Amino acid sequence: MAARHTAPPSLRIPDRASAQHSWRSPLFEAAEIGARIDRREFETSLLDLRVALVNAQYDLRKVNFPVLIVLVGDDRMGLSAVVNRLNEWMDARYVHTRVFGAQTEEEQHHPRFWRYWRALPGRGELTIFTGPWVLATIKDRMADAIDEEEFQRRLSHMMRFEQALLDDGALVLKFWLHLPKERLEKRLKKARKNGESSSPHAIDTLIHEHYDEFMDLSERLIRKTDIGEAPWQIIEGSDNRHRDLTLARSILAGLSARLDRARAEVPPPPPPSPDIEPPNQLATLDLRPKLSRKEYKEQRDALQDRLRTLSARARDQEVATVLAFEGKDAAGKGGVIRRLSAAMDVEDYRIVPIGVPTDEELRHQYLWRFWRHLPRRGRMVVFDRSWYGRVLVERVEDLVDEATVRRAYAEINDFEEQLVEEGVLLLKFWLHIDDDEQARRFAARERTPYKKYKITEEDYRNRARWPEYERAVNEMLARTSTDLAPWQLVPANDKGYARVRVLREVCDALARITGEPSERD
Amino acid sequence: MAARHTAPPSLRIPDRASAQHSWRSPLFEAAEIGARIDRREFETSLLDLRVALVNAQYDLRKVNFPVLIVLVGDDRMGLSAVVNRLNEWMDARYVHTRVFGAQTEEEQHHPRFWRYWRALPGRGELTIFTGPWVLATIKDRMADAIDEEEFQRRLSHMMRFEQALLDDGALVLKFWLHLPKERLEKRLKKARKNGESSSPHAIDTLIHEHYDEFMDLSERLIRKTDIGEAPWQIIEGSDNRHRDLTLARSILAGLSARLDRARAEVPPPPPPSPDIEPPNQLATLDLRPKLSRKEYKEQRDALQDRLRTLSARARDQEVATVLAFEGKDAAGKGGVIRRLSAAMDVEDYRIVPIGVPTDEELRHQYLWRFWRHLPRRGRMVVFDRSWYGRVLVERVEDLVDEATVRRAYAEINDFEEQLVEEGVLLLKFWLHIDDDEQARRFAARERTPYKKYKITEEDYRNRARWPEYERAVNEMLARTSTDLAPWQLVPANDKGYARVRVLREVCDALARITGEPSERD
Repeated sequence: MAARHTAPPSLRIPDRASAQHSWRSPLFEAAEIGARIDRREFETSLLDLRVALVNAQYDLRKVNFPVLIVLVGDDRMGLSAVVNRLNEWMDARYVHTRVFGAQTEEEQHHPRFWRYWRALPGRGELTIFTGPWVLATIKDRMADAIDEEEFQRRLSHMMRFEQALLDDGALVLKFWLHLPKERLEKRLKKARKNGESSSPHAIDTLIHEHYDEFMDLSERLIRKTDIGEAPWQIIEGSDNRHRDLTLARSILAGLSARLDRARAEVPPPPPPSPDIEPPNQLATLDLRPKLSRKEYKEQRDALQDRLRTLSARARDQEVATVLAFEGKDAAGKGGVIRRLSAAMDVEDYRIVPIGVPTDEELRHQYLWRFWRHLPRRGRMVVFDRSWYGRVLVERVEDLVDEATVRRAYAEINDFEEQLVEEGVLLLKFWLHIDDDEQARRFAARERTPYKKYKITEEDYRNRARWPEYERAVNEMLARTSTDLAPWQLVPANDKGYARVRVLREVCDALARITGEPSERD
Repeated sequence: MAARHTAPPSLRIPDRASAQHSWRSPLFEAAEIGARIDRREFETSLLDLRVALVNAQYDLRKVNFPVLIVLVGDDRMGLSAVVNRLNEWMDARYVHTRVFGAQTEEEQHHPRFWRYWRALPGRGELTIFTGPWVLATIKDRMADAIDEEEFQRRLSHMMRFEQALLDDGALVLKFWLHLPKERLEKRLKKARKNGESSSPHAIDTLIHEHYDEFMDLSERLIRKTDIGEAPWQIIEGSDNRHRDLTLARSILAGLSARLDRARAEVPPPPPPSPDIEPPNQLATLDLRPKLSRKEYKEQRDALQDRLRTLSARARDQEVATVLAFEGKDAAGKGGVIRRLSAAMDVEDYRIVPIGVPTDEELRHQYLWRFWRHLPRRGRMVVFDRSWYGRVLVERVEDLVDEATVRRAYAEINDFEEQLVEEGVLLLKFWLHIDDDEQARRFAARERTPYKKYKITEEDYRNRARWPEYERAVNEMLARTSTDLAPWQLVPANDKGYARVRVLREVCDALARITGEPSERD
């Protein structure tokens, strides 16, 4: 793992320990080469470069991967200039540029990465992410608005976000525009002298006044989020022509290499070594719990009253809730969800049934379709089937390879961690019934007046494949039942018991997060 | 055109003139029938009704039209209760309910109907629109926040919005929940007595205190937005069971009738009578205007400087801008757009190239895909090809029938009217070249180093069909060049002239709307 410099081409970076008591960072120093390009050389180079860039864009529109260009750094004015340059040199119609500044109200009401997910390029598209969002993390740390642990956590989410995109086939090119200290000083002096605005830009001043700390945090950010497939490239901003040409060439090189790779026959990844068989949690689940009709009705009514109060409280306290339901066919997900929704105000919840993805969804990393449905603060989203489809049906039906399934566990855990860390209440339920009960329910459905429950051949086929599903479920439980987001295994042979159990879990969790005194008080 | 009552089944409504000096509106009175349903009858009816409703939902998921249920009225508490009831009785997983209350910040920054378009059901989906949004228009009028003309305009946009959906095949069911005056009085008394909150709900009080005016405006709203295919149905809210059952039955009847119609063989609409040939504006356009290289460069640079200033001003003043570009193949749209974008900050504009629609887009009315890209206030969106595709390429290639094309003109005019009325700067350009120039450019493209300009067979095929396109363009110009949104015909045989001409038009329009003094000052 090494940050790559565009010029000179390679560089050894010493361990952080040896550098941390000096602002003179070898990482940035190496970029401060003071290279200049004169106008003549610039214009000659530009002609071919632009043709090549636009042609690469054209080829890109026919491929099956997205391109994300990340442009950040300490050189605020340089960033703005260079983004405009890229839009001028490339075919601007096929460059989406997203400038991430202060969050809008809509964005503030969603988890931090929601706006990045929404703005991601689809396959065959190119998007530039720019703006002060990376600086914001550094500024927050400098101001002690976040502690060291939170700083590290944010970096690790950034890295895993990129990694998920890379694993999905994306080309990610990351550039850090750097201005040497003396150039920054000159700019500040000039700004004060010109007096266009009463004072120079706040970020420039902040960087200047806390240069050591700022550069130290920047370096740590770069090191931590440096990924083999997507290393940071540091570009010096002192000479505009050098900066623009270096960046454009580097983008072209990145695009060309990735296009070549796409054209080549890529052998499928080797199958991962087989896992130790996960413990069979399903087999040991006690499915006997049962409620009498009277017990069920009494408890259901009491819990629904409680849920009514608690969901109103969650809305008032702006707590977002995400419920994910998975389960064996005919285990009764629909019935459970209806008992929940009946006790809430329609304005407060939304049910999202997960079926076949749309083509817009297929053009993005698979978690994109879940990010887009996340609730605002104060609202609840109930996923009827969920992102776990990747490690269940998609795995068993061989729609994805084993390496992808392995990665999915980590991607899912990171996704859920982000939600929980940002205050979202997340609960996930597996509703379970045994084979006999399933057979009884299939038979009952043959006689139901509800068309949607009519049993098809596919249901019987899925039933026959249960051993494979069971193994997938057990592995899912083992790998994604985390402290922050544990699975709830719900015995559902008795419908009433399952409904009451889920109602109670949801109520208890809402009570905890909204600080309600326990039921007895 | 007549408002239909669910019970009694039909009613003659006298002219508005005879009713306008009395709050005793025959429209609402007819609904005040005081019907009651006892618990026993209610529960017996409910069983079959729910099975039938859920089965209709199931059938609906396999059809090719969307269902929109509009639930509004003067009975605030009734609305909330009834929406929850519907979600309970139907399969809530396949009911989307959108409660339109106060606008979010994001919504405030877009044209009024943007949030409704975004929330529309796709084909095979069912959405309930509810909330105080219709009341908001009445409240605004009562408070004189809008004048009579604006009131009428809003009603006419509501109606045309629905009409566009209906013409696209949607089933639209509209219900107005009405509470008689004496019931409203009782509710207010009870609220004051209970003192749950210090005062009864603001809307209830407002309605009560200005009952005559409120009912008068409601009646006018209902009459004006009553459409043959989607009449308002007024339901009395006095008895909960009667209200809920009447509504559910009415929805079931609507769904069933529409499902039957979908199953029946529907003959295509008869071709409309042929039009008088539109004037050939293209043929009379003078294509000779031309600039020398020097003139071009000077004027371009000056105009780009001006655009830089003006687009910053538009951002500061929160003026949204929409530019639509259409033109003959090889007329130079891309070159013009690049000259515009080069003079703006990437944060301020977005270019949206319009190609083949995605499947999510195909599931909605064709204007949906343009609504979703409309700019926030202070931003610009440049459409490279536009909603005019429906009356150009889709028409010439026989992708839509003539009746649909006829409707599209009105739909487009209404769409554009909404934008302009809400302060969006809208400009639309047709770039024109003659056949000889097109032939020259095609030949030149054969030699260009840019792959994306390579000429294909299809380009020559389109060229051969030009007479049909020309007729379509001329009709489009005749029917959609309105006072609010006139077409700009741009002679583009000379690329420099066309670029400068468009730059100037955009600058002048921005200057007018931002109140810049004329160029001379």
